Amino acid sequence: MLAVASGKGGVGKSTVAINVALALQQMGASVGVMDADVYGPSLPLLTGVHGRPRAEERRIVPHEAAGLKLMSMGFFVTENSPVIWRGPMVHGLIRQFLTDVEWGELDYLVVDMPPGTGDAALTLTQQAPLAGALIVTTANELSLIDARKGLLMFEKVQVPVLGIVENMSYFTPPDLPDRKYYLFGQGGGRRIASELGVEFLGEVPIDPRVVEGGDKGRPIVLDAPDAPAARAFREIAGRVARKLAVLADASPPVADANITWVG
Amino acid sequence: MLAVASGKGGVGKSTVAINVALALQQMGASVGVMDADVYGPSLPLLTGVHGRPRAEERRIVPHEAAGLKLMSMGFFVTENSPVIWRGPMVHGLIRQFLTDVEWGELDYLVVDMPPGTGDAALTLTQQAPLAGALIVTTANELSLIDARKGLLMFEKVQVPVLGIVENMSYFTPPDLPDRKYYLFGQGGGRRIASELGVEFLGEVPIDPRVVEGGDKGRPIVLDAPDAPAARAFREIAGRVARKLAVLADASPPVADANITWVG
Repeated sequence: MLAVASGKGGVGKSTVAINVALALQQMGASVGVMDADVYGPSLPLLTGVHGRPRAEERRIVPHEAAGLKLMSMGFFVTENSPVIWRGPMVHGLIRQFLTDVEWGELDYLVVDMPPGTGDAALTLTQQAPLAGALIVTTANELSLIDARKGLLMFEKVQVPVLGIVENMSYFTPPDLPDRKYYLFGQGGGRRIASELGVEFLGEVPIDPRVVEGGDKGRPIVLDAPDAPAARAFREIAGRVARKLAVLADASPPVADANITWVG
Repeated sequence: MLAVASGKGGVGKSTVAINVALALQQMGASVGVMDADVYGPSLPLLTGVHGRPRAEERRIVPHEAAGLKLMSMGFFVTENSPVIWRGPMVHGLIRQFLTDVEWGELDYLVVDMPPGTGDAALTLTQQAPLAGALIVTTANELSLIDARKGLLMFEKVQVPVLGIVENMSYFTPPDLPDRKYYLFGQGGGRRIASELGVEFLGEVPIDPRVVEGGDKGRPIVLDAPDAPAARAFREIAGRVARKLAVLADASPPVADANITWVG
């Protein structure tokens, strides 16, 4: 179980989660994605998959698309109704996603974490058998400060942080392929990774195609596999897979069950 | 009391809040800013103001900078400690900010709301005498969906939505001043505003100077007042002031107290 987290919302955590999940799947793994952001679920939009999942013998059957198994709070609510929930209700829902969903045999379950260090994030880090966490940030200070907080939260509950991904790093105009405009500052992700002693997993350029692809349910790894952003996601997925394998090797056999997580 | 909210985090809500507050102040008003984002307070970084506020006769004295009165959760915690709080603790803190802070006579108290529709946001909309709310979004679908949810939350608790601000709308490279690259899609904010029957208050271009200014505690309205983004913030502040004045006029005298809010 791989957590994709960010201290701050809006840094593209869900976009990174789905594209890394797809890249892992393209490497031959069986992959599930659990969208644990109960307040702002984004998996339905990003994948174009909607509607209430079936139940079979009291177990919830996840949706499937592009070879991924998908589960999201967003499959249960409509777009226009705000989910105004108090903490305890959130705990109950997350527990259900962990215990009552029929994931089957998975090599990776990618968990799109709720942003921040609030109730839902805390519950998940405490209740889910997370093998590792990947932290997404942008290069600006505010996002880096929150990324640091996210990292400390995982360390407190002893979940290994696999590394940091810097998203929306720079913009290359389509008509000026040699330019790189760093919109949120340059090198912030790399700097904080070295400061905190974790690996820097890569920078992903900002590309209107990533946004468009997300908006129409076609993540860029599928939609424009040759785009620099898609290449970046594949490289990050490769590094993540390697790090998880090393961690699994180093863990006692019992802990292995955390990585191939059976629902 | 003016709420600056967003359905989604990371759309620049705090940046909009502080720059609109400064623009209101430059128009001659006395303005306070309350950073109610307990999980990721950003006011200390954006203003360069740090440290525990004084207490006087059991009342908390807000910090002052650039003519604004400032209060933030971030003044009470250190940068590196994650605030992992359960819902009820959050309620208590927000209540204190509303009742125990010595704001003095203010024309506007700009509240930088917690993102989303979770515990903290819900508490605030229920407990604070909000005169109106401004909703910040980016142009991509995911952000717009969440903006819609935010708007519905305010409508449910009968707080008037003054309008929608689209942030990070387009990028103009400094060496190519005639180009506009729409990074997150074009026209999304305007479209959702008309769809939901609220005013579109303006689009703010993405400008590395906004990010830099925020990172070093000098908001762009102060730091580069001639930049297009600074101009956009001033126009938005003007529209907000006008709408609040109209609302105050239309309200019975008792409700006037909500706008000139005395702590």
